[in-house]
Amino acid sequence: MSPMASPESVRRHNLSLLLRHLHQSGALSRSEIGGTLGMTRSTIGELVADLRARGLVEEGDPARLGAPGRPSLVARPNPEGAAAITAEIAVNSLSAAVVGLGGRILHRARVTHQPRRLAVDQTIEDIGKLILTAQASIPSGCWVSGLGIAVAGVVRRADGFVHFAPNLGWRDVPFGRLVADRIKSSLPVTIANEADLGALAEHTWGAGVGVHHLVYVSSEVGVGGGLVIDGRPLVGAAGCAGEVGHFQVNPLGDRCRCGAIGCWETEIGGPAILRRVGIVEKNYKPEAVTRLLRKAAWGDPVALAAVEDVGRWLGTGLAGLVNVFNPQRVVLGGWLATMWPMVERTVDAELRARVMAPSKELDELIRPTQLGADGPLLGAAELALNRVLDEPTLVPARAAERRSA
Amino acid sequence: MSPMASPESVRRHNLSLLLRHLHQSGALSRSEIGGTLGMTRSTIGELVADLRARGLVEEGDPARLGAPGRPSLVARPNPEGAAAITAEIAVNSLSAAVVGLGGRILHRARVTHQPRRLAVDQTIEDIGKLILTAQASIPSGCWVSGLGIAVAGVVRRADGFVHFAPNLGWRDVPFGRLVADRIKSSLPVTIANEADLGALAEHTWGAGVGVHHLVYVSSEVGVGGGLVIDGRPLVGAAGCAGEVGHFQVNPLGDRCRCGAIGCWETEIGGPAILRRVGIVEKNYKPEAVTRLLRKAAWGDPVALAAVEDVGRWLGTGLAGLVNVFNPQRVVLGGWLATMWPMVERTVDAELRARVMAPSKELDELIRPTQLGADGPLLGAAELALNRVLDEPTLVPARAAERRSA
Repeated sequence: MSPMASPESVRRHNLSLLLRHLHQSGALSRSEIGGTLGMTRSTIGELVADLRARGLVEEGDPARLGAPGRPSLVARPNPEGAAAITAEIAVNSLSAAVVGLGGRILHRARVTHQPRRLAVDQTIEDIGKLILTAQASIPSGCWVSGLGIAVAGVVRRADGFVHFAPNLGWRDVPFGRLVADRIKSSLPVTIANEADLGALAEHTWGAGVGVHHLVYVSSEVGVGGGLVIDGRPLVGAAGCAGEVGHFQVNPLGDRCRCGAIGCWETEIGGPAILRRVGIVEKNYKPEAVTRLLRKAAWGDPVALAAVEDVGRWLGTGLAGLVNVFNPQRVVLGGWLATMWPMVERTVDAELRARVMAPSKELDELIRPTQLGADGPLLGAAELALNRVLDEPTLVPARAAERRSA
Repeated sequence: MSPMASPESVRRHNLSLLLRHLHQSGALSRSEIGGTLGMTRSTIGELVADLRARGLVEEGDPARLGAPGRPSLVARPNPEGAAAITAEIAVNSLSAAVVGLGGRILHRARVTHQPRRLAVDQTIEDIGKLILTAQASIPSGCWVSGLGIAVAGVVRRADGFVHFAPNLGWRDVPFGRLVADRIKSSLPVTIANEADLGALAEHTWGAGVGVHHLVYVSSEVGVGGGLVIDGRPLVGAAGCAGEVGHFQVNPLGDRCRCGAIGCWETEIGGPAILRRVGIVEKNYKPEAVTRLLRKAAWGDPVALAAVEDVGRWLGTGLAGLVNVFNPQRVVLGGWLATMWPMVERTVDAELRARVMAPSKELDELIRPTQLGADGPLLGAAELALNRVLDEPTLVPARAAERRSA
């Protein structure tokens, strides 16, 4: 409740504001920065010089910095100035990456496997190796902000405790503690649900940039969701919000891996897509979905009918979410993004029949992901980069830069 | 982006903070105020004197001001110092009220009728009369902050345009403009969905006080919902959020008044309750639901089975909302509140079978409304009182008080 701010705290606030703006927007001229942040040219000059001295921002010729056509000197985030290590425990892959400022992926390794229950010990061992390899790849002089991990399950944000991950076969796993023990690092670790992080990434760099109210739904084996409301991620009371795949939509439907009957996931999840062509759930393989969607795209009537049916369930479920959230944008990930061109009309018809809001709200509402499978890794990076974005002065000024400044 | 605040703007900010705190909490001693707002005794003394001079706050003996047992002088909001006029267009009633600071209802008139399509012209005429009568009842010297109206439909907040109100039979009604024309008043008018306002009222004064993540679901003829997320009402991109009654839960279900098949409303709305005992929708009467619920409470097996079935659908739908929002509290209104004691076990079992979050999150999660049918009127008052709560200096100091100060 102190209304008076010291010049020093104002400066730190402004450094954070500028760094975050460049991180999200990429290369910008001083006049573009001034226009958005309402700062004078001289303030911007001082702030950019400070961030350059810390190695967090580069400034120079637009063509050299990848912003050709700009009229004047541009500033951009330096991806090798500060970075986050990120990892993802998905149902059919483990991955780790290094993501620099601006969302640039500097290193990435992904190991895919058939969807199956994952032994916790082995998973910790495997993801630990991937994380340590990622860490070893970080360029010297790059300041590491933290480690962010995306998990395909219900996660308590405070300590990375996984309450329930039906598609991994996990319940009550103290994942945050186990990972910290494995990697023996003092880096701050942040763990969150992969779809929540997919939503955050699309909002920061993908199909949801500039959108204040965003619904993100992704289907692989399971169906995940993430929400952005008034520009902020919806996390809920215990960090468990966004489980959109577990509305009951069909009381006569199949049993879900969560244990209940007829969840939305049992109609639009990966195995549910294959069920329509007679492939039972225990034989689910991602490649079979890829083949089915390709056949549908070629016009195979059986495959098309299957995709059409999934599209109807997608539409009725999305209509429910649109009625609850009244979003400006819905972003689809995973199989839903792949099949989107084939189901667009069906989904649109369901929405127009079911949504209470005026139908012009539905124009251009839905878009496929722009970040694809990298979404959760990038979202985890965004969480882990918050430390440097909030407080750029954590990164010390460099000797060489200090001399030139 | 000005980090420096003038003493005058700090003072106005603090006046607003204090008035809002008293408005929500009722009578408080200076030390209680200091403990919550972090202000010194002398600051509180000056602010209370200012608000007293404007007639917005009273201060004195705890017993006289309705706070017996308090140790020292207490301050409380003066309900006759500033008030809002509020009105509600519900499916089976029209009402208007005057609500003073602190949420005290100073005047209220409600006209009930059988649920039916309402002619727009006649409704404007009728609600206009009720509003003018309410206005005439306002005590002299009471500052009127605005007019707030709750409507059982999808409303655009900006201008009170009603996009769709299936249970009133309205579509695309410029309700805000029509009301303003009818009452010929210069008062600011705010119009919102009745369930959104019910949620806001429960959050401010009812079963959701102190709760940051709240789901409110109410059933009369239709099913309405309102959400509070991180302490703020969810309104959505166009103010249409919260339509929780229109998730498809039963693909083989009945046609909803919204036009779609199998919405949650068709399983837990008022007519759906009666359908279980063979009463068809066109014969829906609120008294018949009251009778049915009374019979169930007495142990009538047919009535009990009907209520039990509604309870199961209530539970599966609530489980979906809990999975999406991870709330700290769910508040039930309308018939759902009445039947709550009879369906509590059934709902709890459905939730425990379906919710992904840890089950301790479900303990004491659900409560019936504390405000009952007054919720939407009180929520509309809260919106309309924002003007004085945000800027108490709009109310001029009174001559008599100024002398005594």
